[in-house]
Amino acid sequence: MARKLTGSAELLERAQRVVPGGIYGHMAPGFLVPGEYPSFIARGEGASIWDVDGNRYIDYMCSYGPIVLGHRHPVVEAAVESQRANAFCFSLPGPAYVDLAELLVEKTPFANWAMFAKNGSDATTWATAIARAHTGRKKILRANGAYHGVAFWCNPAQAGITDEDTANVVSFEYNDLESLTGAVSKHADELAGIIVTPYRHEAFHDQELPVPEFHSTIRNLCDDHGIVYILDDVRCGFRLDLAGSGHYYGTEPDLSCYCKALGNGYPISALMGREALRGAAQQVFMTGSYWMSSLELAAAVATVNELERIDGCRRMREYGIRLRTGLARQAAEHGLEVRLTGEPGLPFMTFADDSVFERAKLWCAECIRRGVFFHPSHNWFLTTAHGDAELEATLEATEAAFEAVAQKFRA
Amino acid sequence: MARKLTGSAELLERAQRVVPGGIYGHMAPGFLVPGEYPSFIARGEGASIWDVDGNRYIDYMCSYGPIVLGHRHPVVEAAVESQRANAFCFSLPGPAYVDLAELLVEKTPFANWAMFAKNGSDATTWATAIARAHTGRKKILRANGAYHGVAFWCNPAQAGITDEDTANVVSFEYNDLESLTGAVSKHADELAGIIVTPYRHEAFHDQELPVPEFHSTIRNLCDDHGIVYILDDVRCGFRLDLAGSGHYYGTEPDLSCYCKALGNGYPISALMGREALRGAAQQVFMTGSYWMSSLELAAAVATVNELERIDGCRRMREYGIRLRTGLARQAAEHGLEVRLTGEPGLPFMTFADDSVFERAKLWCAECIRRGVFFHPSHNWFLTTAHGDAELEATLEATEAAFEAVAQKFRA
Repeated sequence: MARKLTGSAELLERAQRVVPGGIYGHMAPGFLVPGEYPSFIARGEGASIWDVDGNRYIDYMCSYGPIVLGHRHPVVEAAVESQRANAFCFSLPGPAYVDLAELLVEKTPFANWAMFAKNGSDATTWATAIARAHTGRKKILRANGAYHGVAFWCNPAQAGITDEDTANVVSFEYNDLESLTGAVSKHADELAGIIVTPYRHEAFHDQELPVPEFHSTIRNLCDDHGIVYILDDVRCGFRLDLAGSGHYYGTEPDLSCYCKALGNGYPISALMGREALRGAAQQVFMTGSYWMSSLELAAAVATVNELERIDGCRRMREYGIRLRTGLARQAAEHGLEVRLTGEPGLPFMTFADDSVFERAKLWCAECIRRGVFFHPSHNWFLTTAHGDAELEATLEATEAAFEAVAQKFRA
Repeated sequence: MARKLTGSAELLERAQRVVPGGIYGHMAPGFLVPGEYPSFIARGEGASIWDVDGNRYIDYMCSYGPIVLGHRHPVVEAAVESQRANAFCFSLPGPAYVDLAELLVEKTPFANWAMFAKNGSDATTWATAIARAHTGRKKILRANGAYHGVAFWCNPAQAGITDEDTANVVSFEYNDLESLTGAVSKHADELAGIIVTPYRHEAFHDQELPVPEFHSTIRNLCDDHGIVYILDDVRCGFRLDLAGSGHYYGTEPDLSCYCKALGNGYPISALMGREALRGAAQQVFMTGSYWMSSLELAAAVATVNELERIDGCRRMREYGIRLRTGLARQAAEHGLEVRLTGEPGLPFMTFADDSVFERAKLWCAECIRRGVFFHPSHNWFLTTAHGDAELEATLEATEAAFEAVAQKFRA
């Protein structure tokens, strides 16, 4: 168990000289357990990653979502290879652009059209602009604390953001129908759109599935008041249901935003919408240097088709249930109270009485030492490459990790 | 010369069903010459592209900038191949992240650090946030008409954008020092940053090189008033000078934004800055699912090194001068008045008395029929793969195109 992390430490020291903070954004080392986690990953294959010192880990973060079929999936890589042989970044789109739009429209019951970008933020921001163009109104209603990206209107930090940037954003409490209907009553005539995630999955918080009437209430409020219902499916998309997480929960939105799992690591996001919003979508001007690039579009076609072929969402769900069952049993056996929350394909575990994530960090540190990469304060992600061998090795590591937490924290 | 475009037409018809407008953003067919240009490109190699009907064109748009070494450049593709063999999109960065940051910092005289994103808009928007965090002020000064991306603060269209989104953006006239100093005097204590392109290169306009005192005046105003000088080098970067277009024009900014040519088609953008702004850069929270992905970072390392090895900027400049000389001579021989503007590596030509680009569109249509892909109303781009054969074939096509314009428009 003598794990070397010197290669990571050296690279981090070099990074700290030439990058503010060394590693910025959601990957900043402070979000994990400094000293215990590697800082740089060199290689991936299936459900495993190797850090720059050669240590192997079973990957439960999956690049915070993008890897859904496993690293280096042969079907996706073959599609990319084939596109690369012809080049991919042109002054006009290629056939893969039409193929992907048709495929997504076919899979998505509510949607008549698709558009592509690069970041999840691009898609959520684009959606708000289309809602505004369509309604002629300004305000966007969102849940307090929900993460919709880093554009100025939704940036989770305050530095560099002005009051004007968020002047048209109002909020309510996720899963609180009174708060929701209250916010809509208060702002109804000004509301262009309501944007929500399929369930509550922001970091530093237990996940919460939507209460039964949550999405249908939003749907009804939007219909009653002419508001555009925007589903931010960036994180859950293609892990719950290929028809979209709105479909999964039984209520279809007007616009939905995809990213992450769509391209199995190749950078792409997508916005999908109803026929009624086609005109507004044409009026809003959004574009980027690489948004039509066939490489990522071809990767996405292959990813979605493969997820369908192997019934990927069901596979991840089943693995997630087995993982959750194992973790719950181990925790109980060690007399530890844990909360296992969210959909099984995006599992998360917190400890009771652990407001500053002390127990979670110790548990994660013990896991990473044993070759399992969890996150103490952000939901995890599965792939279809997680199988019996991964589950067994994982539960062996987590058994020891629970034991360590029990040793340190049990009364 | 019977060129078939039926494959493009069929794909466009399919696209129009499943994508608002068929093809959106800067690639929308209306910006070219409908009926004459293909709508879909299938393949690229060096300085050539082939549309989906198999027609070959010498590429003078280069994907609106990203392709700088030519399509499928072997050195870039080898770096990508090598990274792909190990996978590339992880929950932490890989070594290529440090390699690229070090390389860019080494090449860029003013900069001490680099950060990476996906879109040009990401970089310009991030820069304004850092300027605000650093100064504690709100306003951004920009040139009227300049294109800095599609974020709400700089989106060139109005649909979906609110007054509040642009409430902190003030403007001046590019190359007009009186307008510049006037704007700074008026807003000095509120100005967080001034953002400018190295020269004026917005679409539908002749390009204008900076007047000699332009950048140094901005530099002095920024120094005098504690304003952050942001250079939007998204379009010119790595085509004028590997040390940055600020360096090329003799005045260094505080922050600079790169995209396009940085990755030879692989999707990446970068923000670079001075030591004094490192703290503000750490405070601002910007991130994206794919921003640390090693594939694009490895492509960028290879692209920048190859551009240096072959003195790519000089090559593009020399080709551009030969192209410009040829076009000027041909126009004169046909009695046509043209303006050839901008830096030779990003050439552009307009006709006199052509406010609605009628002559330009006819000229471009005649060129595309003969296998040369120009743009009637947006600056063009060169690559280091453009050589003698391309120049000869191009000038043969443009000779015929000038003849056609002369036939139709000569008094």
